[in-house]
Amino acid sequence: MARYAIGIEYSGSAYCGWQRQLHCESVQQHVESAIAFVANHGIELACAGRTDSGVHAIEQVAHFESDSIRSERAWLLGANCRLPPDIRLMWVVPVAEDFHARFSAEARAYRYIIYSSNVASAVFHDRMCWQFRPLDHLKMNECAQVLVGEHDFSAFRAAGCQAKSSTRCIHSLEISRVGDLIYLDIKANAFLYHMVRNIAGSLMTVGRGDQDGAWFRKVFQSNNRNLADATAPASGLYFLKAYYPVQYKLPTELKKPLLF
Amino acid sequence: MARYAIGIEYSGSAYCGWQRQLHCESVQQHVESAIAFVANHGIELACAGRTDSGVHAIEQVAHFESDSIRSERAWLLGANCRLPPDIRLMWVVPVAEDFHARFSAEARAYRYIIYSSNVASAVFHDRMCWQFRPLDHLKMNECAQVLVGEHDFSAFRAAGCQAKSSTRCIHSLEISRVGDLIYLDIKANAFLYHMVRNIAGSLMTVGRGDQDGAWFRKVFQSNNRNLADATAPASGLYFLKAYYPVQYKLPTELKKPLLF
Repeated sequence: MARYAIGIEYSGSAYCGWQRQLHCESVQQHVESAIAFVANHGIELACAGRTDSGVHAIEQVAHFESDSIRSERAWLLGANCRLPPDIRLMWVVPVAEDFHARFSAEARAYRYIIYSSNVASAVFHDRMCWQFRPLDHLKMNECAQVLVGEHDFSAFRAAGCQAKSSTRCIHSLEISRVGDLIYLDIKANAFLYHMVRNIAGSLMTVGRGDQDGAWFRKVFQSNNRNLADATAPASGLYFLKAYYPVQYKLPTELKKPLLF
Repeated sequence: MARYAIGIEYSGSAYCGWQRQLHCESVQQHVESAIAFVANHGIELACAGRTDSGVHAIEQVAHFESDSIRSERAWLLGANCRLPPDIRLMWVVPVAEDFHARFSAEARAYRYIIYSSNVASAVFHDRMCWQFRPLDHLKMNECAQVLVGEHDFSAFRAAGCQAKSSTRCIHSLEISRVGDLIYLDIKANAFLYHMVRNIAGSLMTVGRGDQDGAWFRKVFQSNNRNLADATAPASGLYFLKAYYPVQYKLPTELKKPLLF
């Protein structure tokens, strides 16, 4: 059995998230059907980070196995012909047998995009989170640094989270601004359920001036989800990329301009 | 009767274009209904540039009349509450009685966005035009300069065009590149039906190397639409803004980052 890794870009707006579900359309279901058509047999995908309903991906990574002999180009073009236009394979490469899209990943990066303006964007309405009250992104950035490192993130963990441990290690968290867009860039070994959106929600509370840095630190250290603010909307969240040991030789280039 | 000018952003993907039609959803219909609800009487809009089905706008301009006393903020927030999320009023300002969104406009600017990449974009699939064959944007730009100035644009005019004259004056036409995105920025006193998309289509033919500058010049000077190449897709086209005499004091700021 040969093993292949794939890079997938998708808009999550029309889907119930990555994971295959019985009663709604998922990204996984579409990609598995498209690749199965090219392979001429059933396909099962494992992915780097299962995104929620409405969450987008610039480079989700997944892997599958097949004995069918196809060129990389045939996998790529064949599958893309069978996919709806809001899901695209960006690349397909053969990988070592021990590669696993989820378990081999050393880190994941997400970007949360906030449009800070008095009126929402029409053209990109389901591609970002809109905030009409001004945000102090420098204060948000300063405040966020307390999260960097290995910590218990229970305060930002959704009720339905099934992870055994609530400890995660945030490698970096940066909040920057370009015009009316505020980017929250976060990289960690892994994430709890709704973790990025819960962090974004409480940081926006600070950015608006409704709470200060001391409040944010207290919420975080309480390990109590009830103290944190509302989960930020899914439309602003993008799975950016997964990081793997260099030995697997996955494509590393990330196309920047399309992320605004 | 007081007269108001409005700035409108919209994604054209879900609509049959600006203009109200009997059997399909138009942007005009939605905006008129939303403002009529706030005004408490029927509204008729005239706009700067009637966009086609699937074409977007960053700042379409229109005007309406009303005797109802409302603050600018009430018009704006009230109408936006009644609009679908892919249409938004950006501003509402009172204007002089002789202002007309169409007839007072001295010029219009459009941007055509081409995504030049081996795989199409999933996240922005209906927000740009995809070209998988490499494009020489410098050659396209050089070639395009022959169009600048006052000319007969019959070669780039759609069959259904109802304009009396096929003469238009292009003030500027620039093709630039940022990463995988190619921007065709064009400003003219006015445009013929499908003119920007027809120009974009034939310039891409040159950019791909299928034809050269001499061919493009010949097509243009033939005044024969049959010689030009196919109309480029609507998804890549954005109505950017309309230019009015300064005496009307319309908002002039254009929000850049959201255009990539």
